[in-house]
Amino acid sequence: MTGTNPLLQALKATSGAVERVLDPMLAVPDGPEARVVDAMRYAIFSPGKRLRPFLVLASSELFDVNRQQALRVAAAIECVHTYSLIHDDLPAMDDDDVRRGRPTVHKAFDDATAILAGDALLTLAFDILVDEKTHKDKGVRLELVRTLAQASGHHGMVGGQMIDITAGDHELDEAAIYRLQQMKTGALISASAEAGAILGRAEKRERHSLQGYARDLGLAFQIADDLLDVEGDPMIMGKAAQKDGRQGKATLVALMGAGRARQQAHMLAEQAIEHLSLFDERASLLRAVAQFVISRRA
Amino acid sequence: MTGTNPLLQALKATSGAVERVLDPMLAVPDGPEARVVDAMRYAIFSPGKRLRPFLVLASSELFDVNRQQALRVAAAIECVHTYSLIHDDLPAMDDDDVRRGRPTVHKAFDDATAILAGDALLTLAFDILVDEKTHKDKGVRLELVRTLAQASGHHGMVGGQMIDITAGDHELDEAAIYRLQQMKTGALISASAEAGAILGRAEKRERHSLQGYARDLGLAFQIADDLLDVEGDPMIMGKAAQKDGRQGKATLVALMGAGRARQQAHMLAEQAIEHLSLFDERASLLRAVAQFVISRRA
Repeated sequence: MTGTNPLLQALKATSGAVERVLDPMLAVPDGPEARVVDAMRYAIFSPGKRLRPFLVLASSELFDVNRQQALRVAAAIECVHTYSLIHDDLPAMDDDDVRRGRPTVHKAFDDATAILAGDALLTLAFDILVDEKTHKDKGVRLELVRTLAQASGHHGMVGGQMIDITAGDHELDEAAIYRLQQMKTGALISASAEAGAILGRAEKRERHSLQGYARDLGLAFQIADDLLDVEGDPMIMGKAAQKDGRQGKATLVALMGAGRARQQAHMLAEQAIEHLSLFDERASLLRAVAQFVISRRA
Repeated sequence: MTGTNPLLQALKATSGAVERVLDPMLAVPDGPEARVVDAMRYAIFSPGKRLRPFLVLASSELFDVNRQQALRVAAAIECVHTYSLIHDDLPAMDDDDVRRGRPTVHKAFDDATAILAGDALLTLAFDILVDEKTHKDKGVRLELVRTLAQASGHHGMVGGQMIDITAGDHELDEAAIYRLQQMKTGALISASAEAGAILGRAEKRERHSLQGYARDLGLAFQIADDLLDVEGDPMIMGKAAQKDGRQGKATLVALMGAGRARQQAHMLAEQAIEHLSLFDERASLLRAVAQFVISRRA
């Protein structure tokens, strides 16, 4: 399947490269705290799509960013994404047993270890970003920390997750669901695409174009994810399906039906691509990934 | 009790000042994500000792650091400390119902909200530190982020907590317990005392003196905490007593008995004070707090 498709090849290459960056950062210590590092490694070295790291690398290529620097930022963002999955899967949250085709961290270890592994991955992300190996310019490093913190805090990912798990108590309309998705998954996806512009000290309009691209891409991605939950094959997805309906989750698919939701995702993907008109053929992988997120089966 | 004791007055003043810095940063949003901010506020505006913020302010005074800048760093460190308490109190971890004289966050809200409130406070800490209001020098801000990340990650606080909750499975000797305490509580206490030296761009030997002070202070503090768990009055402490024995926690008090542990704490407090010989009377509050931690009843 990965044979000749350049996007799938790029995604696979991203995965390997990010893992090579993270491996020495997650050296297992001698003491009894090794358990939490084992859990961090278990979570981060599981076969994910690596969409966010890919966006960091692809946006970095637009501005001729050093690849090792881009990989460090990609690794930091993957740490934040993985922490959010570990905590979201906990019994107190979404209570998921399977993730990326394997038992979730709290199943493979225990709840306490999963909480701590998530905490440590979030912390590690900031530790990676402030190191001078990430960028020699101090202002760039500070901007990366700020962008990641704001995307993942209570105004971003954590706030979105709070809305998501309490959404059963509210009746969310279309605008409220878009806002929820933008916070829960969109903010970190936007930060990933912006990272290349920050690292490359791009012009404001270039950074705004990438923000617009990432916002539409993130929403299309989330609708596709919700469609997969309704229609997908758990064997291919590597996680349980049809959980949203059972948990009474607020999704656009539930609100507008699969047909209109699919139309919406296609429109958003096209819109995402239009935001890239500023960029030449170096943006072709970013264009391809917008097509990919709405056609993927897992 | 706070009447004329300058240390208790300073601790009380610290608490009020840090809360005034945090209040506008934790403005409650309009959307349904307000719940997680309510939980963050509930946790952070509860009556704690504010030992860590106090150490930031007292060490900052040695180097004539701007008080508003010191208060921002104190607030960031209190966010990290509070996040660690919220997560440690969860049923999956230490399962505590009472903290600072009030129901713990997962009791007042629920487990999911408590996990998210902790996550968001950790994230907020880094967001506070990178802002230029914290210090105009970018290198100082980066050093603060690095110090806090390393003190709280898997080599520091999270690693210590991992050892602590699995300690029943190991037989920890004295050296291993000291290492556990140094990671679990010592690292963040050291970071707090170092913060003033970082903000004030102090000389290396001044920073090392404060590290030595904080290391001994942290260990004395932890022994005093464990003694209180054995001998203290839950009404005064505002949390349950005699939990360590029931949970089979590895403590120096359990290992060497209350008498020898008390001697050890006194010796450590004296040693902490000796590390301050470099500094003049401006370090008097730091000296007083070393006496305070071994004499406190709550």
